[in-house]
Amino acid sequence: MKLERLRQSFEELARFTDDGEGINRLAYTETERNARDFLMKQLELAGLTVRIDYAGNVIARREGRSPDLPAVATGSHIDSVYAAGEFDGTAGVLVALEVMRSLADEGVETEHPLEVIIFACEESARFGASTLGSKAMTGRLDPAYTRSLTDKNGITLMRTFEENGLDLDEVHLAERFRDEIKAFVELHIEQGPVLEKQEAAIGIVSAIAAPIRFHVHVGGTADHSGTTPMDYRHDALLGGAEIALAVEKAALAELAYGTVGTVGVFSIEPGAMNVVPGAADLYVDIRGTNLESRQRVVDALATAVNDTAKKRGLNIWMDEMSREEPVQMDSKIVAELTAICEEKGVTCLKMPSGAGHDSMNMASLCPTGMIFVPSQDGISHNPAEYTSMEQLMVGAKVLRSFMLRQANVL
Amino acid sequence: MKLERLRQSFEELARFTDDGEGINRLAYTETERNARDFLMKQLELAGLTVRIDYAGNVIARREGRSPDLPAVATGSHIDSVYAAGEFDGTAGVLVALEVMRSLADEGVETEHPLEVIIFACEESARFGASTLGSKAMTGRLDPAYTRSLTDKNGITLMRTFEENGLDLDEVHLAERFRDEIKAFVELHIEQGPVLEKQEAAIGIVSAIAAPIRFHVHVGGTADHSGTTPMDYRHDALLGGAEIALAVEKAALAELAYGTVGTVGVFSIEPGAMNVVPGAADLYVDIRGTNLESRQRVVDALATAVNDTAKKRGLNIWMDEMSREEPVQMDSKIVAELTAICEEKGVTCLKMPSGAGHDSMNMASLCPTGMIFVPSQDGISHNPAEYTSMEQLMVGAKVLRSFMLRQANVL
Repeated sequence: MKLERLRQSFEELARFTDDGEGINRLAYTETERNARDFLMKQLELAGLTVRIDYAGNVIARREGRSPDLPAVATGSHIDSVYAAGEFDGTAGVLVALEVMRSLADEGVETEHPLEVIIFACEESARFGASTLGSKAMTGRLDPAYTRSLTDKNGITLMRTFEENGLDLDEVHLAERFRDEIKAFVELHIEQGPVLEKQEAAIGIVSAIAAPIRFHVHVGGTADHSGTTPMDYRHDALLGGAEIALAVEKAALAELAYGTVGTVGVFSIEPGAMNVVPGAADLYVDIRGTNLESRQRVVDALATAVNDTAKKRGLNIWMDEMSREEPVQMDSKIVAELTAICEEKGVTCLKMPSGAGHDSMNMASLCPTGMIFVPSQDGISHNPAEYTSMEQLMVGAKVLRSFMLRQANVL
Repeated sequence: MKLERLRQSFEELARFTDDGEGINRLAYTETERNARDFLMKQLELAGLTVRIDYAGNVIARREGRSPDLPAVATGSHIDSVYAAGEFDGTAGVLVALEVMRSLADEGVETEHPLEVIIFACEESARFGASTLGSKAMTGRLDPAYTRSLTDKNGITLMRTFEENGLDLDEVHLAERFRDEIKAFVELHIEQGPVLEKQEAAIGIVSAIAAPIRFHVHVGGTADHSGTTPMDYRHDALLGGAEIALAVEKAALAELAYGTVGTVGVFSIEPGAMNVVPGAADLYVDIRGTNLESRQRVVDALATAVNDTAKKRGLNIWMDEMSREEPVQMDSKIVAELTAICEEKGVTCLKMPSGAGHDSMNMASLCPTGMIFVPSQDGISHNPAEYTSMEQLMVGAKVLRSFMLRQANVL
């Protein structure tokens, strides 16, 4: 594998972007199609057979000696959020391309076929819905839901499919079957600070955390801030502040389980210098890979809501907005990736993924794993997102080794 | 004095309002001019001589036997905030009118002249600057500052003065002299819950609190809320929450002094469900009539800023936006108002005013006091603002008695 060729791949792909700071390559846009077509050409040049499925996923196949055996697959996505960096999703696709190029360079043959998948619409940035391509591939797409999706310009997903030469009514045909894929491993940037802080080169994902989300509304009384004595107040901001701190405290107690709790949205009414805040709205995201641990934080939130309402004479309600279940990675794949790192002297860390990925869906179809490479300062979804080519090459080495072992190199 | 006539005055004045919920009678508008002209007519009918000064204040004078003696004055304002109630300011003006009408009814003569003043532009709602009329009357108006003022439609105060037949360059001529006024007492609604909760009919203001205001900026790190472990975070919302709660705790400890501390504005960035808040901005208002008590709350805020910055690895700064000094009411006037209440069997409470009033400025010119009447539920600056006619009549009785005593009724 060649570091300089990998670097060139990133440079070439970064040219496919709409105007704006950083990378803007939103799902199902012309810009993303052009990037996809460029990559399909590169995969063909590396000897793969390339097709686009009914959801717009690219499936590139490197035939094995036994074409009837299930494929060993890897992949990620090339669509981005607004003002994105160059590595989220892209890393997994371009490293996979580099692995395929190296196999072509060396004339390697495998027993099982290999696959590189470029998933469509992983990011929710355009349609408010994430991992549409991998959901379609794993039969997890709700038809009624997909028909309701529109982007911020009012363009429906239905119409967008047409612009891409696809038909939303046929998207169920993208579903694949259990015996088609032997194993799927996605390489991705960590998007967090753990590998860098712990000085590990590779993260081996044990499970993908899933969020429960709540809307908490705090109702108080909007009094004059000069004329209302402190002991007559029902200050909604202060009630909200106590709840936010209680979520933090509960999540800190679950540090060993990696459970996290965040109040990411917090707004108050009326928000005037001389008025005691009369209402506060908090949006709370609690996620983890251990369901019991996650539930303890949810319970602590509910307790804080009750205690604060009683103590401060506030009217507080909490509404569960969504609840998703964590996804375990395949334990044999985790073990094999760990063994590969040990053999190659690569420092690695078993860790949960706090963010969602296409692998969440693929895990319902076939044994699935993930390889994380470090993110500088933990920054992601930002033009400052950075992983060095050297770090990516370590990931490429582990991914290549895993695929060849699984595919029984001859 | 006649309760029904007072009620009718409120009904008549409430008709002078622009469109919108509640009362909308902003300073120096045509609507306020029409209301002013109506009241000037009523004051003339009650036997007063009425003029408008260089700032747009109305000065209505009921001559005394000794015209050269200083006047005993009362008054308030008739301009309102947006979506106001019917009582803020208006109560002091219409009660004064009723007192004057009763003196005319009874043919009462006084040694000292009496005055009813309708101050211009008490509310900051239109130009972002409050008590302009009483500032002008007491020589406290900064010319450069007034020339910089514009309303939200971009209309300057300069141009507004012209529309009112006034000249901003001549506003200094509105200044009055120390020997013109013997005493000034303003009747006003409390705008807070204390009188109602303590079941007192009258509040006698001991001092008017003044705010110190701070902008506190909390700088943290906007990390991915799924991928950043709890112990790697620098969450600006949580830092801000701790500071807001520290302000409350410090102000609660000053309950005996009536000092209050409020975070009325609190906003976070970026405010997304899956991002740890990277910045928070708090606007803090700390006010009281006791300077040492107020300073203890300011010190507690500064301590909380330092402690939170250190503990959470946040970058926090605080900026003092403004600092005003509390104003003591004249102790002899407080004593006389108290004596009047006792004589008349009116329950009264000596209390600070948490809100600012024209009396703050008048106190620099002459001995000044304030009479508060209760506000239902403490609500003000709101269409639900309410004080009953019976409660206002108690205030009228105390005000009339005070004015006649001071003016040496014959």
